Amino acid sequence: MRTAEPVGDDDGRRATTAAWAEVSPEAARRLLVAAVEAFAERGYHATTTRDIAGRAGMSPAALYIHYKTKEELLHRISRIGHDRALAVLRKAEAGGGTSAQRLADVVRSFVRWHAEQHTTARVVQYELDALGPEHRPEILELRRQSDAVVRRILEDGVRDGEFDVPDVGGTTLAVLSLCVDVARWFDEAGRRSPDEVGDLYADLVLRMVGARA
Amino acid sequence: MRTAEPVGDDDGRRATTAAWAEVSPEAARRLLVAAVEAFAERGYHATTTRDIAGRAGMSPAALYIHYKTKEELLHRISRIGHDRALAVLRKAEAGGGTSAQRLADVVRSFVRWHAEQHTTARVVQYELDALGPEHRPEILELRRQSDAVVRRILEDGVRDGEFDVPDVGGTTLAVLSLCVDVARWFDEAGRRSPDEVGDLYADLVLRMVGARA
Repeated sequence: MRTAEPVGDDDGRRATTAAWAEVSPEAARRLLVAAVEAFAERGYHATTTRDIAGRAGMSPAALYIHYKTKEELLHRISRIGHDRALAVLRKAEAGGGTSAQRLADVVRSFVRWHAEQHTTARVVQYELDALGPEHRPEILELRRQSDAVVRRILEDGVRDGEFDVPDVGGTTLAVLSLCVDVARWFDEAGRRSPDEVGDLYADLVLRMVGARA
Repeated sequence: MRTAEPVGDDDGRRATTAAWAEVSPEAARRLLVAAVEAFAERGYHATTTRDIAGRAGMSPAALYIHYKTKEELLHRISRIGHDRALAVLRKAEAGGGTSAQRLADVVRSFVRWHAEQHTTARVVQYELDALGPEHRPEILELRRQSDAVVRRILEDGVRDGEFDVPDVGGTTLAVLSLCVDVARWFDEAGRRSPDEVGDLYADLVLRMVGARA
């Protein structure tokens, strides 16, 4: 159980803004944060570039200096979100240790990311179909690379006799699905912190792969 | 692996239509199916009652005979969807057998429902926030009852020494989350049939609860 007070909207917004620190200039970053919030609240198709500019306290003309279309905003969000998620997975994988330790680290980090960045993660996961045909293959390739991290660890564990996994492809899918769905149900005001969910899920996944204790 | 050809859009529409057979008259049913499709494709907020009437081949005036507002359509979809999901869980629970058998049956049935009815399930799961304040408590109560089915079986299994579950609440959440997320990624044209995903997930969940083989 978390000991701090529930995190309010302001903290949520600070977390979202901090996550986009790499985007510059500042006006482009503000527009991106406004787009994430608008897409998460009303959906991509119900949001106009005028809505996004208004949320960012800017004019539609100012928006067009940075983003030519609404789809360009979604693509930037999706690209950065997928890059981050993949970086989180690869960092955990590179941490070393046994296959069980690496798998637990990967699940813990990936869950924490989907809990802390749940607003961004929802947009990234639920608006994939709205990406244009010129952007979709690039994003799908990043998703394949994320899948590959989990699959590699499962294969290593099976080869070394650490894991018992009859269906590596299906189990990879289930592990990633469990982590991704955290973005749907996670609530800052809820009973579990991102770290607590990460620890719980790491234990459940080690059980799924029949890790030797 | 499935042996049949990938199921196309027509089959998907037939499955959706069959699922709403209880709705009458036929015009009200056609409107509901059209609303499910429109909400799934474009999101609740981007869909107008005019869009829905048009998809059903009817006039906006004809729509208002059956549904006063767009929210009423969403509420009907959500209510029927949640009633169905709960009925699926309760039927599997009532099937008897050991706790492990009941848990496996519940997971298999719930996964199959989310795979076969993935369009409806996506609307039901992702548009919860769009329900009006007068409808939300009723839907949340149905969700609590679904949670309770899984929780009861886990508690039974722990009491009888069949399962080893340190955190029953968290594990209940994870089991349901794993099943629900099938609606996000399931694809009729994909490699696994609803039954195959159900069997895989039943095995993974039995591992999560440390079921004695």
